[in-house]
Amino acid sequence: MSDKSQQDHRSVGVAVLGHGTVGSEVLRLIGEYSEDLTHRIGGTLDIKGVAVSDLEKHKDSPAAHLMTTDAMSLIERDDVDIVVEVIGGIDYPRQLVLAALNAGKSVITANKALVAAHSAELDDAADRAGVDLYYEAAVAAAIPVIGPLRRSLAGDRVVAVKGIVNGTTNFILDAMDSTGASYDDMLAEATRLGYAEADPTADVEGHDAASKAAILASLAFHTRVTADDVYCEGISKITADDINAAKKAGQTIKLLAICERNGDKVSARVHPTLIPREHPLASVSQSFNAIFVEAEAAGRLMFYGNGAGGAPTASAVLGDLVGAARNKVHGGRAPGASTYANLEIADFGEVETRYHVDMDVDDQLGVLARIADQFSGAGISLRTVRQEEKGDNARLIVVTHHAPERDLAGVVEKLKAMDEVKSVNSVIRLESE
Amino acid sequence: MSDKSQQDHRSVGVAVLGHGTVGSEVLRLIGEYSEDLTHRIGGTLDIKGVAVSDLEKHKDSPAAHLMTTDAMSLIERDDVDIVVEVIGGIDYPRQLVLAALNAGKSVITANKALVAAHSAELDDAADRAGVDLYYEAAVAAAIPVIGPLRRSLAGDRVVAVKGIVNGTTNFILDAMDSTGASYDDMLAEATRLGYAEADPTADVEGHDAASKAAILASLAFHTRVTADDVYCEGISKITADDINAAKKAGQTIKLLAICERNGDKVSARVHPTLIPREHPLASVSQSFNAIFVEAEAAGRLMFYGNGAGGAPTASAVLGDLVGAARNKVHGGRAPGASTYANLEIADFGEVETRYHVDMDVDDQLGVLARIADQFSGAGISLRTVRQEEKGDNARLIVVTHHAPERDLAGVVEKLKAMDEVKSVNSVIRLESE
Repeated sequence: MSDKSQQDHRSVGVAVLGHGTVGSEVLRLIGEYSEDLTHRIGGTLDIKGVAVSDLEKHKDSPAAHLMTTDAMSLIERDDVDIVVEVIGGIDYPRQLVLAALNAGKSVITANKALVAAHSAELDDAADRAGVDLYYEAAVAAAIPVIGPLRRSLAGDRVVAVKGIVNGTTNFILDAMDSTGASYDDMLAEATRLGYAEADPTADVEGHDAASKAAILASLAFHTRVTADDVYCEGISKITADDINAAKKAGQTIKLLAICERNGDKVSARVHPTLIPREHPLASVSQSFNAIFVEAEAAGRLMFYGNGAGGAPTASAVLGDLVGAARNKVHGGRAPGASTYANLEIADFGEVETRYHVDMDVDDQLGVLARIADQFSGAGISLRTVRQEEKGDNARLIVVTHHAPERDLAGVVEKLKAMDEVKSVNSVIRLESE
Repeated sequence: MSDKSQQDHRSVGVAVLGHGTVGSEVLRLIGEYSEDLTHRIGGTLDIKGVAVSDLEKHKDSPAAHLMTTDAMSLIERDDVDIVVEVIGGIDYPRQLVLAALNAGKSVITANKALVAAHSAELDDAADRAGVDLYYEAAVAAAIPVIGPLRRSLAGDRVVAVKGIVNGTTNFILDAMDSTGASYDDMLAEATRLGYAEADPTADVEGHDAASKAAILASLAFHTRVTADDVYCEGISKITADDINAAKKAGQTIKLLAICERNGDKVSARVHPTLIPREHPLASVSQSFNAIFVEAEAAGRLMFYGNGAGGAPTASAVLGDLVGAARNKVHGGRAPGASTYANLEIADFGEVETRYHVDMDVDDQLGVLARIADQFSGAGISLRTVRQEEKGDNARLIVVTHHAPERDLAGVVEKLKAMDEVKSVNSVIRLESE
């Protein structure tokens, strides 16, 4: 292996697109672990260039001499075998990733929004070129969940994936739960501590989690699920009162991504969810992530860890990079997204879960019976009913058995129209398993 | 793809050695999921034969027509590409697996004892033949931990792997903790419920966990670690009293496998360990398994699930089988065990941890000082000391700061020789992180 031409043959050229928190950490780790990586790959990783938008901004970086603003030319260089995309956004990285795949380069991306929106196009391009497209870092950073779904569970049938996949919202909900403070105050705290971005919309409204749910559902059910297929409700309407009521009932509220297979239909959704305090996901604190995968033969598996941050995300990118580089050196190809099963995506109205409905009602004889009639009229049976005094009115909290979203939504409309119902304060879904 | 010769080319011949709980479940799942597996592999799995020791015993099996007692001839058949070994034992399966690898067949094994004892020989044979050797099922059944160590963390540096990797002992310790019953009673309960085998030695003395620790340490640190390198202490000496004392102190006792890298040395050990009740491993109940992996960039990851049983083990075997079959169809090879780092294995005497020493001592003035002197004389500082009345004597419980095993062992010998020390009841190691 000391033969020069052999060594050249075993060099793998890498282009890194982006030099933010993740990109700079990827470069640092490739430097720090270079000897290990060479052994694990059976060849060397050679960084051929780093694409940035502004050379001036990065002029003091140790990688400054590798930088270019011409990402497309870098991708097209003959000596670039693998492209690492860590820019963010959708349209521009989409063009770059497609160009790379079409030019026969394997691609590693950490871009959940891109993968969730354009997986069909990207997968097709990778398949046509016979190259690898990896994105472990797109979901829960270094927590291995895409690898296990693609490989470890390749001989099993996944029936559900449920988890906390957004650290920002988990930090806010956890802080609301432990301090009793309001959503606005804890969002401000998350922003101050760097857990939330200046514009927190993508996190708090659930869009980030929805992208991850789309990716997880696609891999779990071998069916193309895009972010548009994911029902999405964020945490911005969750009040301190909701959290405190949950606490009293031995529960907590988490933003869950829930992907399920029911017969030959699949569904994916993101919404605030009441879970019992003894549920393993209830103890996931701060900005940690945790994902349950339930498969027919394997049973329930849980994966837990740090779901964000430069180093954990870079760890996932490097794991993928070693895999793609090994394939360049030794041949072979990663299993693709492989959406052969092509199952039907259930209409959200068909999806069944349990509900916690909190309302203010007239404190009069017979009101409870009339409200219960609305549920039973829609075929929804009640699991628990709790009534408390609340000034001149009564507060009524109803927990249902499993019922379809459509039916529950119909009942809520009818409740809102009843004179005896002063307000429907919240409707929160419940998971007990 | 309807072309006959194409189809033949894409058929992957499989020999299954063994038809016990796991073997029969593997065959059942291959049948049940055949359509899915064909899509995921890009070819069909064809079972060419099933090797058993007694044809008569399996004559009513749906796979009876495929059975043979001549495992070696089955392995050597030209149409067998992959061999699945689920026999158990060491010597006989070793011969079979080596024969398969030497004949250029990829091998999937669930046999932790075999891999932990003979990984060097097996890896070399796989490398020489350029074929795959997979054994995800050998550690924690369907919980993906070998895959993540080999692939997902391939771009990171693992510093520790700690976990509960034996379901039988966790069931017994958990039952002792929740009922206050004795080890013997809970072992009997575990046997009655099928969690312990008729001869439970391999489980309760930690040998099974030690094999798994050897496999995990080898992959985590890219260094050959065999079961003989693993310090191993089982749970048979843990008393109801130990458990109750732990409970009072807000702790519980778990049998942990602990693999650590310290600088350029690595260590692996299995022993009962006191952990705080709020430690994530403390809530792992019944026969569940959970493994923490700590890596420099990824931080701490946890993997949790069912660590044993026919279906979960078969799920792991099938995941490996799909991977090996994909490589037969598409080319490529799994990353090998790759023990390039070849780090030194620390002498157990050098390994540092904290200790909980429980002893009966004379209830006299000055005894505590003389005992404390023994620790400080060996350079071991104490974290807490608790003294209680115990009949005519006193019970003294000392918890140390980190200290090397060798030094602690020396102190215990000296304590035992002191007239004032009536008995050293237990020495249990502690993990707080």
